[in-house]
Amino acid sequence: MGAKKVVIALGGNALQEAGTPATAEAQLEVVKKTAKYIADISEKGYEIAIAHGNGPQVGRIVLASETASHVTPAMPFDVCGAMSQGYIGYHIQQALRHELIKRGKDIPVVTLVTQVVVDKNDPAFQNPTKPIGPFYTEEEAKKIAAEKGYVMKEDAGRGWRRVVASPMPLKIVEIDSVKRLWDSTIVITVGGGGIPVIEKEDGSLEGVAAVIDKDLAAERLAEEVDADILMILTEVDKVSINFRKPDQKDLDSMTVAEAEKYIEEGHFAPGSMLPKVLASVKFAKSKPGKKAIITSLYKAVDALEGREGTVITM
Amino acid sequence: MGAKKVVIALGGNALQEAGTPATAEAQLEVVKKTAKYIADISEKGYEIAIAHGNGPQVGRIVLASETASHVTPAMPFDVCGAMSQGYIGYHIQQALRHELIKRGKDIPVVTLVTQVVVDKNDPAFQNPTKPIGPFYTEEEAKKIAAEKGYVMKEDAGRGWRRVVASPMPLKIVEIDSVKRLWDSTIVITVGGGGIPVIEKEDGSLEGVAAVIDKDLAAERLAEEVDADILMILTEVDKVSINFRKPDQKDLDSMTVAEAEKYIEEGHFAPGSMLPKVLASVKFAKSKPGKKAIITSLYKAVDALEGREGTVITM
Repeated sequence: MGAKKVVIALGGNALQEAGTPATAEAQLEVVKKTAKYIADISEKGYEIAIAHGNGPQVGRIVLASETASHVTPAMPFDVCGAMSQGYIGYHIQQALRHELIKRGKDIPVVTLVTQVVVDKNDPAFQNPTKPIGPFYTEEEAKKIAAEKGYVMKEDAGRGWRRVVASPMPLKIVEIDSVKRLWDSTIVITVGGGGIPVIEKEDGSLEGVAAVIDKDLAAERLAEEVDADILMILTEVDKVSINFRKPDQKDLDSMTVAEAEKYIEEGHFAPGSMLPKVLASVKFAKSKPGKKAIITSLYKAVDALEGREGTVITM
Repeated sequence: MGAKKVVIALGGNALQEAGTPATAEAQLEVVKKTAKYIADISEKGYEIAIAHGNGPQVGRIVLASETASHVTPAMPFDVCGAMSQGYIGYHIQQALRHELIKRGKDIPVVTLVTQVVVDKNDPAFQNPTKPIGPFYTEEEAKKIAAEKGYVMKEDAGRGWRRVVASPMPLKIVEIDSVKRLWDSTIVITVGGGGIPVIEKEDGSLEGVAAVIDKDLAAERLAEEVDADILMILTEVDKVSINFRKPDQKDLDSMTVAEAEKYIEEGHFAPGSMLPKVLASVKFAKSKPGKKAIITSLYKAVDALEGREGTVITM
């Protein structure tokens, strides 16, 4: 039996610390710490692929691009996503490679620019919900909506923002390359959920303004590479029911049936724990023997060894 | 004997047409045309890796980033380079993959985010020459120089700009991944010459503000993957001596000795044909039987078949 394969989905706190400046330099310092935890997993003998979020980073790329549009043309959202993959992937591969070499492990680490196909008829496109980029006044927002065809919505009293759809990931375009590298190399892929593209009638791909949930993209990746474990790293050590209520209960494990019951009972917040549990359930159901783990970066190794985190299985 | 291996270095005109707007949308249209010529080479049975420039693109990323620095922190230059690899690589892989599929060739195409090691003692760092980013007034330039430690120079009467070094590429950090993918996949790598990094005493890498010549980076790549041919694509079909003079002579071929003589006689413009000829000479000298070709995108297949372009051999 070969090494166990883990797809790791890194949450925002693996890239940026709350309260630190939103600079590239600060991100690199956080990524260097994150790299230690990932190197720990590699040292335990697991084969790894890494997915990661890009919300704050792509937001700032869009913000810079739109703010400077009087001096240089603003970039479309799909290109901003591709740029965020370059930015974040570069930091992770640089920091993780060094951490591995320090430990005498000569394992290559590389980022693949990755497109993910979504269905142009995905119902999410009818109801865009993901806010991106800068805030505008109502007047500016209506002008932009008229000029560019963007959907603009009021965002929690803070102003108006563009919203885009969050469609389901169907297919990872560069999956062959991930598979070819997987057994020798730590691959960073589907960054920010992947660059969302639709398939046109002539078979060509076209980038769209959308945000694919990175946990669902990581799940797609885990299925396609036939990983043993999907590990979703976030800010908490375990999934809880009755979260932040007096009767909060942290879970060591959930079966798919239990998880689906908890989802129905509304225990998990949309845009936060819900997509993580949904992705975990999807993976656990995908094939016999598959296991998903939700935990924090700091408890990742303990969770792989069964001492921490929440395990989701069939 | 297996398929011949070609490293293709794409010039700026393969990404952007003179006189078209500097938008991502316009770039994608040019890249779609470029993809046809590269697909032609693939159809002839060559194994391909692609390097490309990023001058105008990274310049605009820096410009947007600096212009918007009052609303979101400006990105360091190495990160802007990584972002440009994501941006350009995404377009090339999307367009080229479609062009190949249209022709019934199911060949994966993928961009690797790529770091290239330079020597921190490279003499180029003592004499930075590559202008990047926006123009400033003399007063602004002096303020920036004092605040950020940038080297600022007057640029041909158009204003003051930051200048960075153009050091020699020594080592491609992600070369293992390029090699592993090479025989099955068209790999896009060392974009913009690669993200320049120096090796620190503890073995870690650190991004630096520098621009690596993309032809020299492509040469480094061609040597490291043991390519048969280094093909440098530019705006002219052949290298000329006495360029744009009444006695201009277009060359079908040069030996290394001839090329070195022409270089000494000053036939090739620095920052234009000179680095291409230097890279070609370096490759032709690297190992017996190696061949470099300088030609235009449009003549690439003819040049591979010996009917066009300038061939440089030992």
